[in-house]
Amino acid sequence: MNGLARLMALGAISTAILPGAMAAQTAEPVFVNTLMPQPAQLTVGSGVLPISPNFTVATDKFHDQRLDDAIGWAMQRLKLQVGFVIQNAAPGAPAALLVSVDGPGEAVQGLDEDESYSLDITPQGAHLHAATDVGAIHGLETFLQLVQSSGQGFFLPAVSIQDSPRFRWRGLMIDCSRHFEPVGVIERTLDAMAAVKMNVFHWHLSDDQGFRIQSNIFPKLTEDGSDGLYYTQDQAREVVAYARGLGIRVVPEFDMPGHSTSWVVGYPDLASGPGPFSIERHFGVFDAVMDPTRDSTYQFLDKFIGEMAAIFPDEYMHIGGDENNGVEWKNNPRIQAFMRAHDLKDTAALQAYFNQRLLTILQKYHKKMIGWDEIMTPGLPKDVVVQSWRGFDSLAAGAKQGYSGILSAGYYLDHMVPASEYYRVDPVPANSNLTPEQASRILGGEACMWGEYVDPQIIDSRIWPRASAIAERLWSPQSVDNVDDMYRRLWVESLRIEALGLTQISQEAVSLRALAGSQQIDALQTLASILEPVDFDARSSWSDAHGVTTLTPLDHLVDALPPDPPSRHDFRELVSTYLQDPIGHPEQQTALITLFRSWAAAQPDLTDVMADAPLLGNALPRAEQLTQLSALGLEAVSYLSSGLPAPQGWKAQQLAVLDQAAQPIALTQFTVIQPLRDLVNEVQ
Amino acid sequence: MNGLARLMALGAISTAILPGAMAAQTAEPVFVNTLMPQPAQLTVGSGVLPISPNFTVATDKFHDQRLDDAIGWAMQRLKLQVGFVIQNAAPGAPAALLVSVDGPGEAVQGLDEDESYSLDITPQGAHLHAATDVGAIHGLETFLQLVQSSGQGFFLPAVSIQDSPRFRWRGLMIDCSRHFEPVGVIERTLDAMAAVKMNVFHWHLSDDQGFRIQSNIFPKLTEDGSDGLYYTQDQAREVVAYARGLGIRVVPEFDMPGHSTSWVVGYPDLASGPGPFSIERHFGVFDAVMDPTRDSTYQFLDKFIGEMAAIFPDEYMHIGGDENNGVEWKNNPRIQAFMRAHDLKDTAALQAYFNQRLLTILQKYHKKMIGWDEIMTPGLPKDVVVQSWRGFDSLAAGAKQGYSGILSAGYYLDHMVPASEYYRVDPVPANSNLTPEQASRILGGEACMWGEYVDPQIIDSRIWPRASAIAERLWSPQSVDNVDDMYRRLWVESLRIEALGLTQISQEAVSLRALAGSQQIDALQTLASILEPVDFDARSSWSDAHGVTTLTPLDHLVDALPPDPPSRHDFRELVSTYLQDPIGHPEQQTALITLFRSWAAAQPDLTDVMADAPLLGNALPRAEQLTQLSALGLEAVSYLSSGLPAPQGWKAQQLAVLDQAAQPIALTQFTVIQPLRDLVNEVQ
Repeated sequence: MNGLARLMALGAISTAILPGAMAAQTAEPVFVNTLMPQPAQLTVGSGVLPISPNFTVATDKFHDQRLDDAIGWAMQRLKLQVGFVIQNAAPGAPAALLVSVDGPGEAVQGLDEDESYSLDITPQGAHLHAATDVGAIHGLETFLQLVQSSGQGFFLPAVSIQDSPRFRWRGLMIDCSRHFEPVGVIERTLDAMAAVKMNVFHWHLSDDQGFRIQSNIFPKLTEDGSDGLYYTQDQAREVVAYARGLGIRVVPEFDMPGHSTSWVVGYPDLASGPGPFSIERHFGVFDAVMDPTRDSTYQFLDKFIGEMAAIFPDEYMHIGGDENNGVEWKNNPRIQAFMRAHDLKDTAALQAYFNQRLLTILQKYHKKMIGWDEIMTPGLPKDVVVQSWRGFDSLAAGAKQGYSGILSAGYYLDHMVPASEYYRVDPVPANSNLTPEQASRILGGEACMWGEYVDPQIIDSRIWPRASAIAERLWSPQSVDNVDDMYRRLWVESLRIEALGLTQISQEAVSLRALAGSQQIDALQTLASILEPVDFDARSSWSDAHGVTTLTPLDHLVDALPPDPPSRHDFRELVSTYLQDPIGHPEQQTALITLFRSWAAAQPDLTDVMADAPLLGNALPRAEQLTQLSALGLEAVSYLSSGLPAPQGWKAQQLAVLDQAAQPIALTQFTVIQPLRDLVNEVQ
Repeated sequence: MNGLARLMALGAISTAILPGAMAAQTAEPVFVNTLMPQPAQLTVGSGVLPISPNFTVATDKFHDQRLDDAIGWAMQRLKLQVGFVIQNAAPGAPAALLVSVDGPGEAVQGLDEDESYSLDITPQGAHLHAATDVGAIHGLETFLQLVQSSGQGFFLPAVSIQDSPRFRWRGLMIDCSRHFEPVGVIERTLDAMAAVKMNVFHWHLSDDQGFRIQSNIFPKLTEDGSDGLYYTQDQAREVVAYARGLGIRVVPEFDMPGHSTSWVVGYPDLASGPGPFSIERHFGVFDAVMDPTRDSTYQFLDKFIGEMAAIFPDEYMHIGGDENNGVEWKNNPRIQAFMRAHDLKDTAALQAYFNQRLLTILQKYHKKMIGWDEIMTPGLPKDVVVQSWRGFDSLAAGAKQGYSGILSAGYYLDHMVPASEYYRVDPVPANSNLTPEQASRILGGEACMWGEYVDPQIIDSRIWPRASAIAERLWSPQSVDNVDDMYRRLWVESLRIEALGLTQISQEAVSLRALAGSQQIDALQTLASILEPVDFDARSSWSDAHGVTTLTPLDHLVDALPPDPPSRHDFRELVSTYLQDPIGHPEQQTALITLFRSWAAAQPDLTDVMADAPLLGNALPRAEQLTQLSALGLEAVSYLSSGLPAPQGWKAQQLAVLDQAAQPIALTQFTVIQPLRDLVNEVQ
């Protein structure tokens, strides 16, 4: 079996090989660009800088604890890659890597932080220069991504990089309400964010399903609203400090006035409805909403926001503001009377009133407001930032009115779409009709990890490596848009993220062993390698119909499968290359045949394992389909490679098989249907 | 490829299949005993208790927070296994699992804690009874280990179990000094310990290489002696509470007077030598030792032990006492004068003097002393416990003098020996000449995970699943001693431990991906599946010769490999069955041929990957050996199955190949040499 065939046969990834293997094929090591995100400017030089045990690092000019820690962390990771300790240069001695930083940057990292850096590598040494710690932190990540190897050892290619981000706001939101994520998960996520130069962690800390941060003033928020799953204030401060060490801001979100069931369980006086309330276990939009007509509501929020402002130093505080259905407001005669008295025509107007009063509180604590599309109501100051889940048009409308905004529509990780789709979404599309000034109000974007179907075990595979594609869209020049090249680098980046301790690759096997009740999972892995979860809507409909709640375990086959596995893009690429000239591509032909045979070979063991495992039983038809797809593929290749036509009716029959296989089973779908369709359709 | 062949070909495990697959082969589900440790008494009944979404749990009689939490934790794990929420029974309604506990047990768990329980399962329900929370905690683990599945779903077989431990002290020591282990590692280790009913976590908190717990009275212990890697007092209290929730005592060790370099870095006045001192980076026995002649030493220790006694409630405190080489005492004229003045003949006598004064301090804080063999000096009270690293004879000698003891010789996990070897070590061997009273002084044993060559990434695979074999030795009746049956259950237990979040199975692939710089590691996995680390002595000699320190990264092939992988026992068993009748065992023959072929098939990719990966290059000869062993195996099977003799000289030539392959390379050794030798030797 040749390399490519073996690889595809096992559902492994032809492109996920670090530079070493490729570079070693030439006599002279060459630069292999696996940077993610791509830098603004890069010039390749000649020669390499070896990384030997003599390699040293030093700072000149300025350094502080944050910079020293960042360098220490980078060198710790380099040490683990190369197998020896990286020493600090002796005082006054020249260093292989010199880090020159002008100053610390802002005391609280903000929108205007200078994140730029330059990195020059020659055979004589590497020089990283940045205006701030944050620029240096980004530059150190680039430095690590440049490390290559050959049989002779590790080295850095000679390059010159000038880099700064296209957008100032490159965020990741995690919803820790619907499922709680422990601090360890948050911190490793921050590590991975920093690896791809994301700079805002948006922490969705409250929602109907759980209130996740301790308040000393209002202890019942977590006592009654969290099931005991919440962050202490010390932990929140630890996360803020940890993020700052990585050049990441932390923007907390307290969703109000809607999505607030968990608040009112312990404090029913906050609510517009009669109560009593209990923590919401289901998903969707619910009626619980704060009472905007009482002064006591604002007194509560004043104290609460004051308390939170002391924990979260960021200049922005996210107030949610989304999906208030207005039901409790309409049903409450007192609130209706208030609306009439204040000439508030509808619930949107009442929410605008609420926002105005909330804004006053935020301003008291020197916080700027950020919220979802719905907060964009008349009279709000222009320094409010709108986070758009509705889409670019909503964002552009805001920008035209003078509002700043960030894009999240199109970046929903829970939608389970391929990285290529996120990659194509641009906060300022090339064809937008915004003036430069309006466009500059679009600060960037945020990937969103909503929490309905993620838990601490599987969250890494739901975020990574796909979020890296979004990170690149937000950092790199707009012209960096080649999907194939993005995927080539994405699989390398995924290995780097795994080396940080994340489990987005390893979790699948862990979950499959648990499902099978066996360490013998190779057949199951063959199937799993070409399956992925259905999209959010399909899962959501199924879940609602089957009474799924926050308590339902996420332990089925669908939960084990990463979205957009390597098979999706790699198989498409393999088939597409093959179809360019079925007779002239014997290597691709062999790879396809080997792959298709491995599918059929897996079936007997697969059927045994799945039939005996209660949680796999409902996916059992997939085992038989694997054999059908195998036969279909082998026949198609046989016709295509021979140039012979298929018998009459063959094509229609195979397309029917594919239509059948394309149906979701047990919330899973095949990743290979469209390329198989292409194969069948090309047969004469 | 049939199941067994596939399995062996992939280095997977024929026996690591949870009961489901086996039970389903018969019409009626049958009990498959995968309990680990085996209970004292077990009677199999008839029928099964299904686990459906109607399954409920309740307590009667007594319950407290610890019991409620233990039940909640068990039901959370059951939920993840079966795929639905397990409900508490409505008040007064019958429960499928009734937990009857008489009372909480001791306020501080001690040697006399009643750990017994009984568990009766009939088709009508399960009844767990225990005198204490701790007994119930053990019983809940047994309950979870009984869960089986068939294609129809999950169930519990009807059984009646009466269980209590053979030994009262079933410990695991982790050395957190030579390499620091974060709280997350400690807590998941405690989870796994509880799964196999271990009840003492011995926390080796200080040694030459690092002082790992914060002291408020003596802050320089960690400021100067820990590189910033230490447990805060809050974290230590958290670990103690966490362990108590699992029925596990925490015995802290502060090693003195020797192994104390890290103490004297910040407090040189404690030392017998002149100083200054720095944290020790190397491994071995060093000179630093406390000064036993000054009152200030005891004033320091009085305050320190008082501070620690407030954190660790256990009745025992471990004072180390091992491996004091006496050099600093001999070199210090003042100490020599003191010895003469006090008629202390040698450094052992001086250490006995130190121990006596230390004992007074421990008694002041109501602590009993435990220490290594060396503390057994005249005049110590009989409630001192001796932990023997020297062996059973030392332990027996103590027992005859009236000292209590626990065995650790033979249980050193860092020695990298197979589980079967630990399993054969008995704290009170059947042939011991101890009286029953003397034997009763041997309280049990402790597995020891010394920290030279473990870090947080790989520690799970160094402890588990091998420690489960020790756990069984210490809990189960002495008559439970079948090694094949132990291994059958060990692989199942390893899956259960993985489900707790430990990485002893998954880490290998993570490490191999990092080493290869690629997600394409199947060839490397084929090789790795029949390799294991060399033993401690071999590694230690190599490390000393190569200047290995605590800072050297543990990122080479040897670190990726788990000791005693499934291939070791499974291949031995396969060959042994085959050799009983080479012609009458076609299934084993096929399995062997498939396995041997997979070795040769892996070589081309393996050579590519290893030659390009700097950290794999020194193991490259293993790739060629894999092909040699493949050829050797295929030829041997060919001769044996045909009954034909080999040509003259063949046998000698093959044994020479095996001798060569048996040599360590890159600190790795093959697991399959002896069975291959057996195959070759059986050829005519």
